[in-house]
Amino acid sequence: MKKVKGLKLEKGMKVSELVAGMGDVGFGARNVSRASEILKKMKMDKDCKVFFGQAGAMVPAGMKYVLLDILDFTDVFVCTGATLTHDLVEALGFNHFFVDLKKGIFDDEALNKKGVDRIYNVAMPNNVYEKMEDFFEENWDGLKECKTIKEFLWKLGEICPGTAEDCILKKCYEKKIPLFCPALADSGIGLMIWGRKSAGKKIFIDAFEDMKEIIDISWTAKKRGIIYVGGGVPKNFIQQSLQFSKGAQYGIQITTDRAEPGGSSGAPLKEGISWGKMENDAEFVDVNCDATIALPLILAGAE
Amino acid sequence: MKKVKGLKLEKGMKVSELVAGMGDVGFGARNVSRASEILKKMKMDKDCKVFFGQAGAMVPAGMKYVLLDILDFTDVFVCTGATLTHDLVEALGFNHFFVDLKKGIFDDEALNKKGVDRIYNVAMPNNVYEKMEDFFEENWDGLKECKTIKEFLWKLGEICPGTAEDCILKKCYEKKIPLFCPALADSGIGLMIWGRKSAGKKIFIDAFEDMKEIIDISWTAKKRGIIYVGGGVPKNFIQQSLQFSKGAQYGIQITTDRAEPGGSSGAPLKEGISWGKMENDAEFVDVNCDATIALPLILAGAE
Amino acid sequence: MKKVKGLKLEKGMKVSELVAGMGDVGFGARNVSRASEILKKMKMDKDCKVFFGQAGAMVPAGMKYVLLDILDFTDVFVCTGATLTHDLVEALGFNHFFVDLKKGIFDDEALNKKGVDRIYNVAMPNNVYEKMEDFFEENWDGLKECKTIKEFLWKLGEICPGTAEDCILKKCYEKKIPLFCPALADSGIGLMIWGRKSAGKKIFIDAFEDMKEIIDISWTAKKRGIIYVGGGVPKNFIQQSLQFSKGAQYGIQITTDRAEPGGSSGAPLKEGISWGKMENDAEFVDVNCDATIALPLILAGAE
Amino acid sequence: MKKVKGLKLEKGMKVSELVAGMGDVGFGARNVSRASEILKKMKMDKDCKVFFGQAGAMVPAGMKYVLLDILDFTDVFVCTGATLTHDLVEALGFNHFFVDLKKGIFDDEALNKKGVDRIYNVAMPNNVYEKMEDFFEENWDGLKECKTIKEFLWKLGEICPGTAEDCILKKCYEKKIPLFCPALADSGIGLMIWGRKSAGKKIFIDAFEDMKEIIDISWTAKKRGIIYVGGGVPKNFIQQSLQFSKGAQYGIQITTDRAEPGGSSGAPLKEGISWGKMENDAEFVDVNCDATIALPLILAGAE
Repeated sequence: MKKVKGLKLEKGMKVSELVAGMGDVGFGARNVSRASEILKKMKMDKDCKVFFGQAGAMVPAGMKYVLLDILDFTDVFVCTGATLTHDLVEALGFNHFFVDLKKGIFDDEALNKKGVDRIYNVAMPNNVYEKMEDFFEENWDGLKECKTIKEFLWKLGEICPGTAEDCILKKCYEKKIPLFCPALADSGIGLMIWGRKSAGKKIFIDAFEDMKEIIDISWTAKKRGIIYVGGGVPKNFIQQSLQFSKGAQYGIQITTDRAEPGGSSGAPLKEGISWGKMENDAEFVDVNCDATIALPLILAGAE
Repeated sequence: MKKVKGLKLEKGMKVSELVAGMGDVGFGARNVSRASEILKKMKMDKDCKVFFGQAGAMVPAGMKYVLLDILDFTDVFVCTGATLTHDLVEALGFNHFFVDLKKGIFDDEALNKKGVDRIYNVAMPNNVYEKMEDFFEENWDGLKECKTIKEFLWKLGEICPGTAEDCILKKCYEKKIPLFCPALADSGIGLMIWGRKSAGKKIFIDAFEDMKEIIDISWTAKKRGIIYVGGGVPKNFIQQSLQFSKGAQYGIQITTDRAEPGGSSGAPLKEGISWGKMENDAEFVDVNCDATIALPLILAGAE
Repeated sequence: MKKVKGLKLEKGMKVSELVAGMGDVGFGARNVSRASEILKKMKMDKDCKVFFGQAGAMVPAGMKYVLLDILDFTDVFVCTGATLTHDLVEALGFNHFFVDLKKGIFDDEALNKKGVDRIYNVAMPNNVYEKMEDFFEENWDGLKECKTIKEFLWKLGEICPGTAEDCILKKCYEKKIPLFCPALADSGIGLMIWGRKSAGKKIFIDAFEDMKEIIDISWTAKKRGIIYVGGGVPKNFIQQSLQFSKGAQYGIQITTDRAEPGGSSGAPLKEGISWGKMENDAEFVDVNCDATIALPLILAGAE
Repeated sequence: MKKVKGLKLEKGMKVSELVAGMGDVGFGARNVSRASEILKKMKMDKDCKVFFGQAGAMVPAGMKYVLLDILDFTDVFVCTGATLTHDLVEALGFNHFFVDLKKGIFDDEALNKKGVDRIYNVAMPNNVYEKMEDFFEENWDGLKECKTIKEFLWKLGEICPGTAEDCILKKCYEKKIPLFCPALADSGIGLMIWGRKSAGKKIFIDAFEDMKEIIDISWTAKKRGIIYVGGGVPKNFIQQSLQFSKGAQYGIQITTDRAEPGGSSGAPLKEGISWGKMENDAEFVDVNCDATIALPLILAGAE
């Protein structure tokens, strides 16, 4: 058994040193440090394809640049429609805002009157939808021929403003990172498509066509590494592609949900062993922490 | 201010009496009792259309009959593909099983060898996939013409075995309950479609077509009531249909996730006021509890 | 492996029937039902001494009668000073009150001006302290000779108003249930003692004397059963008495805290096996649920 | 409203830079950054007395040096008996150990056979108790005259091995930091006292005497700042001393518990406003995070 030496903070300490030091601490810190080690291995293993599944409003929260950093070594990205909508909104020139607590109170009625949509302590101005309407209206001809969600999203990345340094859609398009979003209908971008369709415009995007590609990537990879932030459909969609190919050799999951209520978002990675989604001898860790806190640590620890 | 009288348990007490008694208790019990009262109002308000969003493996957990009871007063049902897959699996004659803890240990490696897929303390036999393959192969002609996910799912409900008393798909089909599942690709049923398509069979299901119907139902309803179990896409898909019509007058949410990490599943219903998804004067409550415990109480309290 | 038959709600169903039915449900409901079965065994096993540890403001929440029901089969009761203070406050004729949310907002500044102390959605009027002062002043002669916390609390039970049907202190005194409260200084009752001592009155209560009795009870019992609600010192004080005698044969824990941060309140009962606080072959279950919801179910299921 | 600029990770970034950057991120990261700012103010405000309450097994987890850093600016320290026991155990030459998961399984039966007491992913060797017995036996004459818990603990700090650089008891003694532990009976040190008393040795430690000092310190301070890690008795004991003097001007709370079940550990600091434990215009923040992760960040951000 390994002795607990414990963490000593030093003035001017680097984040990478802190995360290494957390390897000498138990409880949650140990899991953060372990996640960093596994991430390092995942990045350095040339045989490993990295599947990154992300749910939760990370872009409004100001985590976009951290997600863009992860895309540097991501082979397949699966996210919610919300993430891509928020990304597009910022590419179109809008900002998200902080909604700070006044004595523990968020006054949602006042925010509603101001036209501000709250997500815990951040918010989006409601007028983004008008600008999005204009953008889709103007660019419809380029989009309407797309046949799959991935094709549609890459096209969006091609035509939207912004650069690979500050836009997820742009980076996925330019770096040709396969980008899947099974529930795109459930998002602001989906609403834009609904708007055009309601106005009589035509587009036919197949709900199931992208499945072939993600399962093929998983099937043909020598090894698979998974990074899940927040659970939901992005996690589950990657998990099922693993089930129908081979299990992962590396795994990191960041969630604040818990196992007992039986939802996918809170299910420990270990459960995946029974399904064949995780190899018996895989290296994996569950980090029970807010992703805005844990993700920067894990990344910086694996720099 | 109302006095806390407190709960007195009586021998042979009915569940409805217990839930009423919880109205005299603070903390979480009060929220359960309040949810029951709101549910009663929702059910009795003839002007109210009830939107039920459900995520999490409730069918393997043995909650299918409770979900079927909720469908008795549901006007729009949105769920995950997993729920419908598990429902179909049971309609095809399979059972789910308990995986009890032995000294706190779930041995996933042993379960994997037995061909059993674990979901916390329940499991599905892995061989259901073969039987599902046969079912889809045999019934493909009836399914392949479907153009939307709802149409596909109603068709599945038409042709699958089972009755409206023990099958969700069947009940939604027979009672003509609009059934939406934006991320159907992310499920065993999705895998069956992928399997047929990989074998060269044709089907074209539009990923966005169902949005029109749910938004229309919300738009034309005089009042809207929402019931969310477990968050995820089902919650969010209903929320966005409310945003683009009018907010809800009644709301119940059951979740174990929390607000601070900013995910939709943990977002309190109150946040929806800023977005216009919830009316300012709506009656709503968040119940922070495992749904297998809270849902039977809330339903029985509103019987 | 046992089939999941699932729960069917019936009109007019009894709570005991619901809890039995939860035995056919997975996830958290299964743990509630299991807790009920274990409680039944604990109650019926004549060789078993029941140790009940309770933390959290159950009395202001209206759970006093449920706690009194548990005392019917409790051999040792350990709780926080808060529970006993709230119990005494009610015995002295005060009530607790509900503080309902107005649009998700608890206005603590307004409550402070009204002289109301909030505990989530319930509250205590601040003027209870004056009445408590009077009570202790008048009864000091009877109290000042007590040498241990248990002796002091039984004396308080002897002299306070109320009956064994509505007062915890009274019931523990009348039924001679050993009542331990290691951190009594950390409570309103503690403040009353501090007040008298500050005014120059004498009392010498030994901080460690009660340890002998609880360890002796544990040591001499043939079997030990534990019920923990809310963790904290009450749980830990019982746990250490088991460590220095023999482990428990039966165990129920209700908590909403989680294991990863390493605190005692969130530690699963299983951890106790390593310490010898829980026997290897013990029957035990952790119920992750708000105690105001789970406790009435578990009790009613074991009626 | 302030724009979300977002966090950009840089190679070789310092922890203090990361925490400052988290001020441009929403959700939990924002709360960590805010806690750091408040800590800075607390440390620099010469009029502010800092009350630090700590619960949870931070010493076995390797967080002892971080706690020692906090003691550099702490005016009153309240902790559990466990923290001081673990601290003494290390001063006596013992180490704590890591218990890593093997495929998600902690084998507590095997650990019990090895004589190892598990606390999530760390452990203490059971044989520390024998060495503690020897230590108390040898030093009893110096300890037996102590009349209050604080006096006893300072005496322990005086006579125990170790230095102010690696021992909490030693540092509190040498720096004359008032050290309170109302539930000392509930700990390994308490067991040592019980052991001596059971063997007929005499010691009389008053359970309530320390209350005077903590309330006096709070009463006479110009301002009060609070730091709570993990809730429990240490938090509550400080809270009640504030209630009977004046509220705090600064507050930081780190917990993973939640508000709805009504326990003190999960109660947001804001609740304290209703009680008068927190000033209306105080600066405070709740950080919902594992303390082993959040505490080093908050401290390093305020270096």
